[in-house]
Amino acid sequence: MKVLVTGAAGFIGSNLTDRLLATGYDVVGFDNFSTGFREFLGMACQCPRFRLVEGDLLDCDALTRAAAGADIVFHLAANADVRFGPGHPRMDLELNTIATSNVLEAMRACGVRKIVFASTGSVYGEPEVFPTPETAPFPIQTSLYAASKLAAEGMISAYAAAYGFQAWIFRFVSILGERYTHGHVFDFYKQLMAHPDHLDVLGDGHQRKSYLYVQDCIDAILTAIARAAEPVNVLNLGTDGYCEVNDSIGWIADALGLAPELRYAGGRRGWVGDSPFIFLDCARMRALGWKPQMTIQEGIVRTLRFLQRNPWVLERRR
Amino acid sequence: MKVLVTGAAGFIGSNLTDRLLATGYDVVGFDNFSTGFREFLGMACQCPRFRLVEGDLLDCDALTRAAAGADIVFHLAANADVRFGPGHPRMDLELNTIATSNVLEAMRACGVRKIVFASTGSVYGEPEVFPTPETAPFPIQTSLYAASKLAAEGMISAYAAAYGFQAWIFRFVSILGERYTHGHVFDFYKQLMAHPDHLDVLGDGHQRKSYLYVQDCIDAILTAIARAAEPVNVLNLGTDGYCEVNDSIGWIADALGLAPELRYAGGRRGWVGDSPFIFLDCARMRALGWKPQMTIQEGIVRTLRFLQRNPWVLERRR
Repeated sequence: MKVLVTGAAGFIGSNLTDRLLATGYDVVGFDNFSTGFREFLGMACQCPRFRLVEGDLLDCDALTRAAAGADIVFHLAANADVRFGPGHPRMDLELNTIATSNVLEAMRACGVRKIVFASTGSVYGEPEVFPTPETAPFPIQTSLYAASKLAAEGMISAYAAAYGFQAWIFRFVSILGERYTHGHVFDFYKQLMAHPDHLDVLGDGHQRKSYLYVQDCIDAILTAIARAAEPVNVLNLGTDGYCEVNDSIGWIADALGLAPELRYAGGRRGWVGDSPFIFLDCARMRALGWKPQMTIQEGIVRTLRFLQRNPWVLERRR
Repeated sequence: MKVLVTGAAGFIGSNLTDRLLATGYDVVGFDNFSTGFREFLGMACQCPRFRLVEGDLLDCDALTRAAAGADIVFHLAANADVRFGPGHPRMDLELNTIATSNVLEAMRACGVRKIVFASTGSVYGEPEVFPTPETAPFPIQTSLYAASKLAAEGMISAYAAAYGFQAWIFRFVSILGERYTHGHVFDFYKQLMAHPDHLDVLGDGHQRKSYLYVQDCIDAILTAIARAAEPVNVLNLGTDGYCEVNDSIGWIADALGLAPELRYAGGRRGWVGDSPFIFLDCARMRALGWKPQMTIQEGIVRTLRFLQRNPWVLERRR
């Protein structure tokens, strides 16, 4: 089995690549290293079944060459940070929507018809139903990031109808774990290294969020492609619980042995498009026989330990 | 009041332009005449409050110049034919998704913050609830056309959250009336002019569809922008009923005094992405005080009379 992983040098992409190689797959990893790190592919590059293609998803020819002969494409490359949308309004369109169209066209050109797509629970906007199921009321988008992911979901589904593609679309909560390089644990850890006595917190600290450990996420992806057989499989992916930002701060401070003064920016949202409460109903994914092994707290502490062991990540990530 | 109408030479765009001019607005009409007709702007061009800009939505500079000074943008330009998606998979992305991003960026550059957008009931895919409300369960997209319209809806909503835009997003059923230049009435009329003895019908003729007369559509748009005051107003727009394709064929044949043999292609769907049943719940729009004046049958017959009076349209439209 040969697969293409876009965003192979990223957080989830590199963990998935390692797992696929360990399982015996031939993996072509595609990345432009705009946010991915070569270090994350150190183990993969030792494996003769791995081939790295340094390329950009906006380069359709390179992408088509990389997709040739693949049985399935894991499309993880993305602009993954919801917060910077308003400052760069074309970025999500280009790196998520147009890039996904390019992936689909490359697949069509090569006769590859199976795609796994990393979408986001942010497509639910600010939902009124919790936990939020995949069939929640048709939402209004609140961020360019989520709008671009929803645009990509739509194109993927339309390719299933038009060209016989099969798709697994995962609406993730935030993912935690080894090789995590952006998000609130990263920001808080970086701040506390710079000034252990205080912590600036976006919003009021009461935002409720769900998180999932990266290996649990990968287990779910591999379970779903083996067991979910619809043409288009839309699957929420998260834990059964959630925590407040303040809970997370407590766990982080404890793990570091610190007691910082907390300085809240105020407001229910951390940034434009931030949903004050994310909690997904993952019954569909559970029904396939998957369940997460790690709690949110364990995921946060593991993430922190990774960052402590890898200080270079903090230096090289803006 | 100054407005920009994209797709001003199109079916709905030109009718809207005429109405806006009659109401006293200053109108800039933007069109690249790829599918619009200069003839449809004949009356508008007589009006000193009308200015025509021949330009393409992929030309951001021209678009920004055209948007300068507008109080509101009516964004109607689109690839409007759902049926040709699979043959030109990039067309919907470019003419609907990317073009809408360009419109939004032009507005942002000029400080224009109100947008009316022509979306489609096709974004509900193949719904399970009829009549389908705006809050229907989160659908799976079945056409590239609808996926691109949904992508545009998402971006527009995100601009409302990020930049304080106000939006009126209309999910239309198929629109009928004067200046109609594509769709089933057009196709059937064209066929019957060429061979009055028989009619080739896509699908099994039992597809159920809702239609709305173009002046009713424009009434609704003008009512909504005056009365719906949310940052993002998503409004279904259709009649309270529906008809079968076979009903429509009967009305058309009667109006033309013909009794063609019907040759069905078979299947529940006319084409990839065709939804076998479209019937929207328009209670939200009704609650604003609007109701359609014309039945589906009246709309179909008026469309037919327009085509009979304007044979040049058939010759010049592929």
